[in-house]
Order: sequence, then structure tokens, then C-alpha cells
Amino acid sequence: MSDKLSILGNAIVGQSGGPTAAINASLAGVIRAAQAAPEIEHIYGMKNGVEGLVKGVEPINITLSETQLKLLSSTPASALGSCRHKLPEDFDSEEYKKLEEVFDRYNIKYFFYIGGNDSMDTVHKLSEYCKLKGRKLRVIGVPKTIDNDLIGTDHTPGYGSAAKFIAITVQEVLRDCAVYTRPAVTIIEIMGRDAGWLAAAAALPGAISGVAPDYIYLPEKPFDTSSFLNDIKAALNSHPDVVVAVSEGIRDAEGNYIGAALHKGKDVFGNVNLSGVGKALELLVKEQIGCKVRSIELNLLQRCASHAASLTDICESERIGESAVKAALNGETAKMMCFKRKDETEYGIDIISNDVINIANQTKTVPDSYINDCNNYITDECINYMLPLIKGELPVVWENGIPKHFTF
Amino acid sequence: MSDKLSILGNAIVGQSGGPTAAINASLAGVIRAAQAAPEIEHIYGMKNGVEGLVKGVEPINITLSETQLKLLSSTPASALGSCRHKLPEDFDSEEYKKLEEVFDRYNIKYFFYIGGNDSMDTVHKLSEYCKLKGRKLRVIGVPKTIDNDLIGTDHTPGYGSAAKFIAITVQEVLRDCAVYTRPAVTIIEIMGRDAGWLAAAAALPGAISGVAPDYIYLPEKPFDTSSFLNDIKAALNSHPDVVVAVSEGIRDAEGNYIGAALHKGKDVFGNVNLSGVGKALELLVKEQIGCKVRSIELNLLQRCASHAASLTDICESERIGESAVKAALNGETAKMMCFKRKDETEYGIDIISNDVINIANQTKTVPDSYINDCNNYITDECINYMLPLIKGELPVVWENGIPKHFTF
Repeated sequence: MSDKLSILGNAIVGQSGGPTAAINASLAGVIRAAQAAPEIEHIYGMKNGVEGLVKGVEPINITLSETQLKLLSSTPASALGSCRHKLPEDFDSEEYKKLEEVFDRYNIKYFFYIGGNDSMDTVHKLSEYCKLKGRKLRVIGVPKTIDNDLIGTDHTPGYGSAAKFIAITVQEVLRDCAVYTRPAVTIIEIMGRDAGWLAAAAALPGAISGVAPDYIYLPEKPFDTSSFLNDIKAALNSHPDVVVAVSEGIRDAEGNYIGAALHKGKDVFGNVNLSGVGKALELLVKEQIGCKVRSIELNLLQRCASHAASLTDICESERIGESAVKAALNGETAKMMCFKRKDETEYGIDIISNDVINIANQTKTVPDSYINDCNNYITDECINYMLPLIKGELPVVWENGIPKHFTF
Repeated sequence: MSDKLSILGNAIVGQSGGPTAAINASLAGVIRAAQAAPEIEHIYGMKNGVEGLVKGVEPINITLSETQLKLLSSTPASALGSCRHKLPEDFDSEEYKKLEEVFDRYNIKYFFYIGGNDSMDTVHKLSEYCKLKGRKLRVIGVPKTIDNDLIGTDHTPGYGSAAKFIAITVQEVLRDCAVYTRPAVTIIEIMGRDAGWLAAAAALPGAISGVAPDYIYLPEKPFDTSSFLNDIKAALNSHPDVVVAVSEGIRDAEGNYIGAALHKGKDVFGNVNLSGVGKALELLVKEQIGCKVRSIELNLLQRCASHAASLTDICESERIGESAVKAALNGETAKMMCFKRKDETEYGIDIISNDVINIANQTKTVPDSYINDCNNYITDECINYMLPLIKGELPVVWENGIPKHFTF
């Protein structure tokens, strides 16, 4: 019962894993709610996540105005710095002692961690550790990943903005590719090692303006090179400008990546492949079909393009950050905050919390009902799932032609 | 004297060469001015430029409202389609007869052609042909190229928007790269085979917000791999997140491209190079320095990202299209319209016309005074030249989360 009561003390917040266009919006949400909470005296920021803490980097004391919070929300990447650090399995490890030392010295009673799968593992381990040691620290995870592959939540903060950038860019590339009459194949490589959520977003222009890629291949289904070549030939028979979107993680039936990693030798086509799957397929089409072909890798741009962020995503990301603080004040710990889509005609979400133990280290893939029977496009059900997530445009503060960003 | 008088008749307009974010704004300008001119009854659009005409594709009769013109201005790529077609040197060629047939049938007295270097060659040849044959056709070129490499004009329509997208994206990538503490080199490959104007735009965030790439290498100066590696090592000694921008066209002192073209064999490092210069330098750094390294090719995105177009560029592109019609009505022919920067503290341009014969088939490179002594960055003079060109944001019409585009 005592756990339900608020504890007076300080809070600490950190960011971890790959940057997104929305991870700072969740940070802004945590800071805003923490600043407003009478139970929390100071909100501290970890520099470079738990790695910074265990390495002895002092946290920073944060006080931000509403104007600064808004600017933080429209700033890409992790304003506090990030890390890829897994806490040890062994609770007697020195690392936990270092964390305890910081928590004591800064009187930390609330711990907020914004990140993806690995970061939720940190939330899980740290809350287990505190339970075991009887430490009164409330540990809450705030999800973030452009990959949208966390279970327990309808979607992840950061996905909507990445999907929007992909939809905008694919539409622009389709316009560009349509200007010539000479047959040409364009292959757009999109992030997503294990789940095809981002590549699926390439279909969105088709649902909105009617211009769409010819095919979309996701890692959820085995990629067959002869079917792919037949697909391309069929498309070239009907129009000259063939555009294809592929997840970087597509694999053959045996599970081998179609684009082998740098210096890992030859890919499944026997090419010395110095790049990703887009380049591998470019070479395949050039060799087997012989028409003009190019590949475009959206690369980091899809995760940091906050100049074109989804307003829906940024607002939800702020809200989920605020909700994390409310949940912690309400006595919750060992939780990840989640979006639950309302069961209504018009899109809306509730924010709930789920036990982080059920979430960490798992992957939510694109379900079968979202992929067509030929495994080369997505279904309307998938479109309807994605459409509301890219809606609205984040107001950007422009300064001499480029967005103004926040830095600590 | 009779040439100074307006001729009653119809006008035709075409687009040629690679798409940009601003080529449709110039098209909108031509259409707007032609629709307003009492001397011009109809304005026709070539489909796929002169190639469409010589192949017998019928032009389309264009009537657009101001709302449609505005939407056209914010649509990337060439709404009329494009071509890469050089008119023959031989004026007795069948192609000219085909063009004459179209001009007669549609009573064409004004010919506007929006494009780059090769397109100005078309303007030049066609106006020479008309002069020789005594045909009363006024032929005016409207420049367009993201490469900014046309002589006779302060800058080219399309360059400002591409430079703005590069500046926005480089700033976002810099934020993304700054989140980790582990040493990593990021190489951004930017378009520009013969001139470094686009790569130079990577420096703009540094002048505005203070975050800048460590180095920028342009094709105007020989690229020395050992100097490059020394540059990288020096940067890694001062901070972990090293970011470099390179023009795709950088060459060694003997003029060999650092990144050899696809399937052209080995590059200057002896690598089997399946890609561009970014990938070649990525491999070099991995082999010679051994830290984490990635390359990012901005690819088509830099020429079609009209969602982030420069308002200055789009407005100027409309104006230069309108001016082309005024010049033709005023009796001019065999001209390319040009920007002349006003000699004032505050940025402004006049639009003038220059003889196209002095412009076609030449390349304007980045001058020495715009490049630093170490050949690895640009000077403040270059920054001051570029800064006004990226200013202002084109209002985008959004529809369900992506920009609405115009199509004929």
C-alpha cells in the first residue's frame, strides 16, 4: 500500500539506443511532468544513458521553460546523448553499485528511461535489482523506436515520424522517376532488420495520392529472387518507371540476408557485396534484366528528419513521457508505458502501462493479414493501421533557412 | 525593328534534363505570364520535351487557375515529363522538319525551354535553325539545375532548394551522429560531378547554428587520400563524431574519380567498387583507421525534396519563368534568362537575358576564393554567397500527412 504513495525526492531521465525524431519529445514530456510534480524537487538528465552513469559522468540538473521544451520536442536525435549498454545479469556487479552511488548522492527516487528493446531490458533489470535490494526506486520505461517492433503497444513513439518521412520521400522519388520514358528500375532500401513496418510506409502515398511503388518486400516473408525478377519484368511490361521498396532485412527461405553486410563476403547472388540489399538487388536487375537501375538507401535520414515530423507522433511522444511520470508518482515501477488504440471509428489512443518483463527482448513483426498473398505488397488493413500515425505537421522554428534545434 | 513587335500566336513550353524541386515553379511562371499575355492565345506543353515533339507526341493545351499554378510550383520533378535529347548538328535532319510541322500545325510563335546545360544547347540550335530558315519563332531558355553550374547567371533555379535540403539534412545527421561517445566517421556523398556547389551547402548549418561537418571536399581541387586520412585522424583526436561531406565528383591529381562508376572495375584504392565515392572512402577509412564508419548518399532526395523547398528559390524560379515570356514578347530570342545579384547589402536579384550561345555547354565551377587553403572546407565568402538562397519555406499543401502535388 505504501508503494502507492508518492515518494519525495528527485528524478533522473536518460535516452538510449538509436536516435529518432521523437525521442526528445518524450524527454520533453518527462521533464514537463516532473517539473510540475510537487513530489519531484529536481529532474536530472543522464548523459549517454546508463553507460554515462556507470562511467561516472555526472548527471545534469534540468530546468526548462515551455519554449525550450517545445524546441526540444522538435529536435532530432537524443539531446542527452545515447548509449548501447546492457546492464549485467549479475546483480553483484560493480555497475549496480555505481548506479546506487549516484542514486544516493542525487536522492533519486524516480528513474525514467526512453529507448527501444535493449533499453527496456535495462528497465527490467534495474527494477528487478531494486526489488531484490529493497531500494525504493520507481523505474519506468518510455518506448521509442522508428522500427515499431516493440510488443505491448499499438505503435512506438518515433515510428509515425519515420513513416511520414518515408511516405513523403517515396512520393517525391516516384515523381522524379516518372519524368523519363526510358525503362528504369529504382530500388528504395528502407530500415527494418527484423520487421517491415517502415518499408510498409512506402505504400502510404498510393493510398493518399494514388502514386505508389510497384512492390514492397518485407522481412516477414521469405524473399525469392526469381519471383522478384518476374515481378519486375511484369511491371516493366506495363510502364517504364518501376519503383520498388525493400526492407534492409529481407532474407531468403533459408534465412540468409539478401544483402550481406559489409566485408562479410558474397551475398546470396554470389556478388561481392560491399553494401546493403538495395545495391545487391540493383546488381541483380542489371545482370538479369539489363535495364537502367538505381538503388537509394534512405539511411539515417529516416530516423532523424524532424523537419518533417508527424505532429501526431510528436504529441503522442510528449504525452507518453508525461504519463510515465504520472505512473511513477502513482506507485508504478517495472513498467513500460504503452499506446492502446481506442476502439472507435476516429483514431485516438489511451496510454496504459504494461509489465516491462513481458516486453523486453521481443520483436513485434508485421502480421500476416497486413501482407498480400503474393508477399510483394501490403493490404488495406495495414494502410488503415498506418494512416493516422503520419497525420499533422510539427511546427518547425526556422532560423535562416534551417530548423532551430535545442541543445543542453 | 519588326522583331521588337509582338507576334500574335501560340506558345509552347517544355522541360528537359534532371528534375529539380523548382523546375515546375518556372513552368508555372511561364504559364502564368503566357496566360496573361494578349499576344498569346494558347500555351501548349511538350510532353517529354523536344524528344516528345520529334517522336510525334501531341502537345497538351494548358489552362491553369492560380490555385493550380501554386500547386504546380510546389510539385517536384518535371510535371510535363523530361528528356535527355540533343538536337542534331545537321539542320537538314528530319528532326527539325518534325519540329517545324508541329510549330506550323499549332501556330507556335514562342518556344520556352526549361533545363540545364544540354537544354540550352537545344535553345541555341533551334534559334540558329530559325534564323537560318527565316522562321519567326522566338526561342528562350529558362535555366534549371540543382548543380548551379551554368555560367551567365548568379545562381540557377533549383540550386537553392537542393542546398536547403542538404543544409537541413546535414544538420540532422550531425545531431544523430553526436549521440554516441564511440569514435565514428560518417561520410555524406553529395551530388555534383564537375562542380562542388551542392557539397559546399553542407557548411551552411555551421554558419547558422554552429554544427558543421569537419571537412568538405569539392571536385574543383585534387583529392589526396593521405591528406584525407590525416584530416580524419586529426578530427578523431579532438572528438568522436567525425562527419565529412564529399562531392560525388572528387578526383585525384591525375583526374581519376575517387569512386569509380558501377562495374567500371577498381577504384583508385584498388577496391572493387560497386558504388560511389562515399562507399569508397568508407572502405578506405575502415581499412586504414579501423574505427566505425558509415557512408550516406543523399541520392535523388536532394533534387526532389520539394517538401523542404526554399521559398526564395521557388519565388525566383516563378519570376524567371515569367520574365522569359516578357523577353520573348519584347522580341528577344536565342537567350537564356539569368539572375543578376544586386550590388546591395541586402540580397536581391534582377532578371536579365544573356545570349545562349555564350552559355551552352560550359560549366561554372566553385571559384578558388570560395575554397580554403587546405582544400578541405569552404570560405566565408562562399557561405555569404549561399546563405540568402536557402531562405524562407515554401508553403506546402498537406493532404493526410503528405504533400499534395499537381499532375497534368
